[in-house]
Amino acid sequence: MEGKEISQAVVKRLPRYYRYLGELMESGVERISSNELSEYMKVTASQIRQDLNNFGGFGQQGYGYNVKFLYAEIAKILGIDKSHNMIIIGAGNLGQAIANYENFEKRGFLVKGLFDNNPALEGVTVRGIPVQGIDKLEDFIREHHIDIAALTIPKARAAEMAERVVKSGVKAIWNFAHTDLNMPEDVIVENVHLSESLMRLSYNIAKNAEN
Amino acid sequence: MEGKEISQAVVKRLPRYYRYLGELMESGVERISSNELSEYMKVTASQIRQDLNNFGGFGQQGYGYNVKFLYAEIAKILGIDKSHNMIIIGAGNLGQAIANYENFEKRGFLVKGLFDNNPALEGVTVRGIPVQGIDKLEDFIREHHIDIAALTIPKARAAEMAERVVKSGVKAIWNFAHTDLNMPEDVIVENVHLSESLMRLSYNIAKNAEN
Repeated sequence: MEGKEISQAVVKRLPRYYRYLGELMESGVERISSNELSEYMKVTASQIRQDLNNFGGFGQQGYGYNVKFLYAEIAKILGIDKSHNMIIIGAGNLGQAIANYENFEKRGFLVKGLFDNNPALEGVTVRGIPVQGIDKLEDFIREHHIDIAALTIPKARAAEMAERVVKSGVKAIWNFAHTDLNMPEDVIVENVHLSESLMRLSYNIAKNAEN
Repeated sequence: MEGKEISQAVVKRLPRYYRYLGELMESGVERISSNELSEYMKVTASQIRQDLNNFGGFGQQGYGYNVKFLYAEIAKILGIDKSHNMIIIGAGNLGQAIANYENFEKRGFLVKGLFDNNPALEGVTVRGIPVQGIDKLEDFIREHHIDIAALTIPKARAAEMAERVVKSGVKAIWNFAHTDLNMPEDVIVENVHLSESLMRLSYNIAKNAEN
């Protein structure tokens, strides 16, 4: 892995490989050829071979891919072989939805804290995690070695919150607020802009209607 | 527009232009040069000119872009100058979060119905919309001319629900279930795979740690 640059296009596809390989494992499949994987994933076999060659290629001629091994290797590349401590800022419906996803925890994303200043949420717990006031943020991040902060708050407060968490040691922001965050280069920002996703959908409806 | 193919890369960027132009309008800005827009959006000016040229280019030499006009034109291209009737299947936290977004409604995505079979949600309403049983799905879609169904349910039931809504006339699925839906070609599927987004974030943490 060292020194090898993987294109962002490949990185974008890796989680999907990981998901399909996980499903194959659950079904008891131990090995699979690139052709079978191609049919299953609706991606060309040559694309699969190319993508997986990026990491030295785990396939063997005439044998195919060892599903379990490939699954574990992709996990390593994606950094999900280690666990990450996460907090969620904004404990409204979206924040609570994320705190409730058991699958994130299975993949090593451990929700350690939930923060919100809304007094209506005082005393609320999600999967045993109590909602805390935002004044507790900095101490909590340091004490619990938090890597990731999910921002599920309106855009007006997002920039301020991002700055605060980064100052306290957070390395990556999972941003659901509908705004771009201008962060130092070494801070990772992964955006989930739901309304942009909805607009792409609407574009495709309009395009279909033309034909 | 007719006959003109816009690349998916440009389509992906359009909602972001739309968002920035909306913010400019809110701040009372009437026109803007590609250089100013470039600085504001952190995109090169030549990229902006190229992207906006796809639709005949709305800029004028020495004048720049008319913000309001460009905003309206992009809305037309994105199909959000018309309204869309939407339902949400799965009224858990995520479904309720989406039903609560007032911004979707402002952009013409009207949440008309909420469906869930969980008896605990009986009698619950979100912004005045009652949660209904899934047995009411087909009649509701036909009566209310529903275009879009958001699936905020676990993956096990997603394929079945997608088939049911499409049979009843839904044209587009906004899929939050962590699975790919194999739909007929004329059905639009826009995926929001949150755990894949989280894995990309984790990949970038791992990469940063190497450097």
